[in-house]
Amino acid sequence: MTHSMQLHQVNQDMQQCIQNCLDCHSVCLNTVTYCLQQGKDHADAKHIALMLDCAEICQTSANFMLRSSALHMRTCGVCAEVCNMCAMDCQRFANDAQMQDCADTCRRCAETCREMSMAAV
Amino acid sequence: MTHSMQLHQVNQDMQQCIQNCLDCHSVCLNTVTYCLQQGKDHADAKHIALMLDCAEICQTSANFMLRSSALHMRTCGVCAEVCNMCAMDCQRFANDAQMQDCADTCRRCAETCREMSMAAV
Amino acid sequence: MTHSMQLHQVNQDMQQCIQNCLDCHSVCLNTVTYCLQQGKDHADAKHIALMLDCAEICQTSANFMLRSSALHMRTCGVCAEVCNMCAMDCQRFANDAQMQDCADTCRRCAETCREMSMAAV
Amino acid sequence: MTHSMQLHQVNQDMQQCIQNCLDCHSVCLNTVTYCLQQGKDHADAKHIALMLDCAEICQTSANFMLRSSALHMRTCGVCAEVCNMCAMDCQRFANDAQMQDCADTCRRCAETCREMSMAAV
Repeated sequence: MTHSMQLHQVNQDMQQCIQNCLDCHSVCLNTVTYCLQQGKDHADAKHIALMLDCAEICQTSANFMLRSSALHMRTCGVCAEVCNMCAMDCQRFANDAQMQDCADTCRRCAETCREMSMAAV
Repeated sequence: MTHSMQLHQVNQDMQQCIQNCLDCHSVCLNTVTYCLQQGKDHADAKHIALMLDCAEICQTSANFMLRSSALHMRTCGVCAEVCNMCAMDCQRFANDAQMQDCADTCRRCAETCREMSMAAV
Repeated sequence: MTHSMQLHQVNQDMQQCIQNCLDCHSVCLNTVTYCLQQGKDHADAKHIALMLDCAEICQTSANFMLRSSALHMRTCGVCAEVCNMCAMDCQRFANDAQMQDCADTCRRCAETCREMSMAAV
Repeated sequence: MTHSMQLHQVNQDMQQCIQNCLDCHSVCLNTVTYCLQQGKDHADAKHIALMLDCAEICQTSANFMLRSSALHMRTCGVCAEVCNMCAMDCQRFANDAQMQDCADTCRRCAETCREMSMAAV
């Protein structure tokens, strides 16, 4: 999000988590196209499906937080799991900057989502 | 879904669960408009937010199953929880056919999602 | 949708169009997984991207109609275009039942969406 | 998006448009909750529906661009229209910082989406 953005009923920790979810969603969706163009291992069906899963649950989790939903803790919990799996699946591609960027973004998202999922209500 | 539809790697139980998620998504989104038009208690911020949450997690869960994702068990688990809460929030409106339909649809979706979330992989 | 479903402010033509959009969304997303598993031409980057585009705009168009949005005519217009392109891209795969089913479903969705996009308000 | 983010096959103009779509999606969804809490005119059914429409088409347009889809010009065209209507609907609420922020964000998104929709392929 643009830095100056003020969100209603969203504190600083949550705003950072929303940002990480949106970043992870963007990079995963963009990397799917990159992987399909690379072909071979990059275009493996399970790898692509995992990146699509990750992009979607990140979007859903961001939306729950943007709505100030009490249930965001539950979507953030699943999101942290999916992002961790996606990070591991992406970091296998050593010497590939796009994949390493994707893995880093997934890991950052997983960390803030895990914290969000364990926060006191 | 139209009855004759054949989905790849989707067994009968999963196809029923996808259908229930799509139905629940459709009814919740449609009922949001109904509630906003009714106003007062129907348009309470938390009630509308819960129906939007329910519509979105149902869509996400359906999409995970349509992709044959191994992680659908996790999204179905959250979906069952959200649907149950939404069903309870809707059934409060006695003598209101749209709200009772919405509650019934949420409950059906919650049941199949719970089973899906506990299935052996 | 389950046959008995009653939607608020949705007439029969629109309910059929919503159903066709949801069917098209489901089949396209499911066929992406099938195509990635088949590999080669099936997994071509542009083909997969087009099916993901089609799945997403179908979902968006269905949601605009479910909300009784006045702007559904505009999303249905784009949806008809994308579905037609996706149908042509899928029907190239002769003797492949999943691809032909996908093409048929896209074509049915394109037809009702085109009508919806030209309806008098 | 975080500033350093490098997207595959996304030039600077498109990256700005994606950012504006994501910002507009975030602010609209967040403002729906604000409006429902304010009640009265803020919670008018058509106003809420328009903000939900705007949030959704922004997300869809961003996703088309993130996938480097050739069809992003069409979704950006609809997005520009919806954002303009949403901006006008929000700016009616004078002396309301959240609504004016939302209107400004919608207008910025409409401008870049309109340019994107007219770009030579």
